[in-house]
Amino acid sequence: MEFSIGQIAAMLGGEVQGNDSGKISMLAKIQDAKTGQIAFLSNPKYEQYIYTTQASAVIVKKDFQPRKELTTTLILVEDPYSSFTVLLEEYHKLISFQKNGIEQPSFQSDTATVGNQLYRGAFSYIGNRVKIGNNVKVYPHVFIGDDTVIGDNTILHPNVKIYAGTRIGNNCVIHAGTVIGSDGFGFAPQGDGTYKTIPQLGNVLIEDNVTIGANTVIDCATLFGDSTIIRSGVKLDNLIQIAHNVEIGKNTVIAAQAGISGSTKVGDNAMIAGQVGIAGHLILANRTQIGAQAGISKSVKEEGQQLLGYPAIDIKDYFRSYAVFKRLPELNDRLRELEKKLGTLAATELNSDTRP
Amino acid sequence: MEFSIGQIAAMLGGEVQGNDSGKISMLAKIQDAKTGQIAFLSNPKYEQYIYTTQASAVIVKKDFQPRKELTTTLILVEDPYSSFTVLLEEYHKLISFQKNGIEQPSFQSDTATVGNQLYRGAFSYIGNRVKIGNNVKVYPHVFIGDDTVIGDNTILHPNVKIYAGTRIGNNCVIHAGTVIGSDGFGFAPQGDGTYKTIPQLGNVLIEDNVTIGANTVIDCATLFGDSTIIRSGVKLDNLIQIAHNVEIGKNTVIAAQAGISGSTKVGDNAMIAGQVGIAGHLILANRTQIGAQAGISKSVKEEGQQLLGYPAIDIKDYFRSYAVFKRLPELNDRLRELEKKLGTLAATELNSDTRP
Amino acid sequence: MEFSIGQIAAMLGGEVQGNDSGKISMLAKIQDAKTGQIAFLSNPKYEQYIYTTQASAVIVKKDFQPRKELTTTLILVEDPYSSFTVLLEEYHKLISFQKNGIEQPSFQSDTATVGNQLYRGAFSYIGNRVKIGNNVKVYPHVFIGDDTVIGDNTILHPNVKIYAGTRIGNNCVIHAGTVIGSDGFGFAPQGDGTYKTIPQLGNVLIEDNVTIGANTVIDCATLFGDSTIIRSGVKLDNLIQIAHNVEIGKNTVIAAQAGISGSTKVGDNAMIAGQVGIAGHLILANRTQIGAQAGISKSVKEEGQQLLGYPAIDIKDYFRSYAVFKRLPELNDRLRELEKKLGTLAATELNSDTRP
Repeated sequence: MEFSIGQIAAMLGGEVQGNDSGKISMLAKIQDAKTGQIAFLSNPKYEQYIYTTQASAVIVKKDFQPRKELTTTLILVEDPYSSFTVLLEEYHKLISFQKNGIEQPSFQSDTATVGNQLYRGAFSYIGNRVKIGNNVKVYPHVFIGDDTVIGDNTILHPNVKIYAGTRIGNNCVIHAGTVIGSDGFGFAPQGDGTYKTIPQLGNVLIEDNVTIGANTVIDCATLFGDSTIIRSGVKLDNLIQIAHNVEIGKNTVIAAQAGISGSTKVGDNAMIAGQVGIAGHLILANRTQIGAQAGISKSVKEEGQQLLGYPAIDIKDYFRSYAVFKRLPELNDRLRELEKKLGTLAATELNSDTRP
Repeated sequence: MEFSIGQIAAMLGGEVQGNDSGKISMLAKIQDAKTGQIAFLSNPKYEQYIYTTQASAVIVKKDFQPRKELTTTLILVEDPYSSFTVLLEEYHKLISFQKNGIEQPSFQSDTATVGNQLYRGAFSYIGNRVKIGNNVKVYPHVFIGDDTVIGDNTILHPNVKIYAGTRIGNNCVIHAGTVIGSDGFGFAPQGDGTYKTIPQLGNVLIEDNVTIGANTVIDCATLFGDSTIIRSGVKLDNLIQIAHNVEIGKNTVIAAQAGISGSTKVGDNAMIAGQVGIAGHLILANRTQIGAQAGISKSVKEEGQQLLGYPAIDIKDYFRSYAVFKRLPELNDRLRELEKKLGTLAATELNSDTRP
Repeated sequence: MEFSIGQIAAMLGGEVQGNDSGKISMLAKIQDAKTGQIAFLSNPKYEQYIYTTQASAVIVKKDFQPRKELTTTLILVEDPYSSFTVLLEEYHKLISFQKNGIEQPSFQSDTATVGNQLYRGAFSYIGNRVKIGNNVKVYPHVFIGDDTVIGDNTILHPNVKIYAGTRIGNNCVIHAGTVIGSDGFGFAPQGDGTYKTIPQLGNVLIEDNVTIGANTVIDCATLFGDSTIIRSGVKLDNLIQIAHNVEIGKNTVIAAQAGISGSTKVGDNAMIAGQVGIAGHLILANRTQIGAQAGISKSVKEEGQQLLGYPAIDIKDYFRSYAVFKRLPELNDRLRELEKKLGTLAATELNSDTRP
């Protein structure tokens, strides 16, 4: 992963001022950059650093006029910050997808089929009849159960565990330790106080462009042919619990340690903050927003509502009530005071009434 | 895993109407079923599907009278739904225990002893002096530390991690990524603000028929010879924290993301909902029921109590108080109104008293 | 790991009474101890056991005078309990660091460099250019990403996952299933309702003497050159979420299932209880103490504050308000009663005022 300054300038549609054959392998801040690295200058208060930087190249605004001599090469562009962001994203893609080839020992069933540019890390496991698309990265210690199907450009970080029969789309990223397709939590109480396991025979379906954090768990659906569904564009953080038969609508974002109980359907473009708990068998409208640690016990019908509390209510109402909650001892005192006064007054009144 | 229709009918004590030699390899809903699959018809409103289904067989009630021609084979039974449930459970058992044999590379210490019908998945690890019963399934990436003992018919899903010295009974199921026997969280504060680690030298004891979800953690006990104990029939969901020296009574059910602090003893047949937190060194009576997200700060002496809130109180009391909480701003206004009125009244009274 | 009684006495600076050549391989309680084990007697109410114990040796107070015949060997010391604690700690260190050598198959890049006394468990993975100090224990299924640096005497329990570029100090312990350096949860909303991934290019820096529980997650920082930082002496429990760019001050202790949002800085010697949630971009003063399940939504400026509630307030204020919360239905009734009385009174007053 090394580019010449000329190649980078061409990618950005910029103009080189200086030596365009220098090699760049990394991005850095202008004050920290070293040889072989590229930085940018956008905010004038950082201009001082451009005269001393060791960066091999600096991206600057088209009309930049150096006030001292420069040792670094310049790339002139319209908007240095957004050009740098483009490079960041390209760099990120490159490092995300740089792993290639087969490390040994790793395990792939004879009946599995895999696409081009597969990375199969050491100690990874690909089960029977698994189908994997192109440019998929299977890091070390990943487990892919039998009959799973995975689309193109998907990255499975170390130790992702995928139970048999899961379906995962294109351009997904799943972080380390996450479990997809474990049994839903279903047990039927028996007369003697024990529980009988309800077989969990469905699967998990994850659409395209889904990102899932680390050590999250998504359970499979209960019935044959049913799926726990994560729609396209959903972003899940770390340590989240998604129970059996849940459906998360497209582009919904869920922060760390939230938990969604069985059979609940969350709408599209919802935002669920950290440590939220949602009861089972509910329907949440599109664009519902739930504040951190809230507990949702009822369906939400109106779109775009903001909720907080336990059980959750409208966020403004919660804060109004909580403001009074904080003064409850004072309220209690005032109430007691009133009762005393009213007692006295009633006594006085009684007196005045019985006045001759 | 393929059975003839005749074999299935015999298993259910049912009678075949049609070709009993057709092969069945899967169960399905009547509206979705394909050749090689078996479905059931119980609710009359689904009757229409039996005339068009591609299922190779359909389980129906003994007295079922088709109103049109049928292409599928019938199995006549007393109760089609419960017969189908029997098949589901048999099927589930079959797929749960279908894995057999040794996949390579996998690691088993020379000093470990294992029973019959072991499945030892690729990259699994069985440490020194480990003892494993019959028909145990050790999926890929499972780690079993030294001196661990595991009973018969227990399934360890991919990547379960068992620290040295753990004891696990018969018929247990532990899902992917769960950790058993990690160090309890014990540190002694030192004069200089640092902490010294208190050695955690006990183990974890899991009795029979226990099911544990994915990415849950159970810490070992602190002292030599002591155990963190999970009694028989307990069902734990995903992402649960069980601290050192905890004991969970038999047939207790705990939902996802709940956490139980050190040395607390939970009684038998308790039900603990998701995201509940329980403080340390408490005793909870049998059949205690705790609502989602509640925080338990005191022991519960009376059996069968239902608790909610933070700290938790009787669930009915919590809801009564919360109903008023939601109207606190209004209460505050009414209180202010009363104060104003009473002020006016007292002033009036004063006037009337001083009237000549 | 077997010592003679004489060696142990020398380690404790104690005096042997009896056979000093007996072999000890384990510690136990005096009532449970067997041959080859050592126990202690400190509390006089356990004295009875010393006359029947099978322990090969018992540590007793210097001035201990047996009242019956003894079959066990004595080690006389100043303080038997603290001597036993010393042995516990030594024993714990021994078993923690007893693993040595290379188990196969395991994976180590040609460009990695490792110190002396490395334990490299089966199926562990050490990536490119990784640098590992002396006496480091890498258990089975551990993944160490490229360019990671690890100090001396650090233990990585089974299945710890370390993303590329992480730095870990000396004397750290990380428990099974924990993930270090996964992507921060950063997404930029787009006009069409989808989200674009913000590249996460920083790393995680863990200083010395840090202990981290099982299945915890620590995300990497967002920007090049930035780190999510865990300062020396920090103790983290299981299933904790530490988001990108967080900094945890030295000797801070965090209990299980707590979550800290992005860019928040927690001071030194803070104590954070289980299931606490802390919002992003906050600063918490040194020695802040946060009660279980609290939600922190604002920075804490004053050192040593104790907080509880949701959002959290001073813990004493929370309990005072909660005491009234539990009686809210009664308060509501009293308020209604007052309103009624005052209505009657005002009516009476009106009457008395209009009296001729």
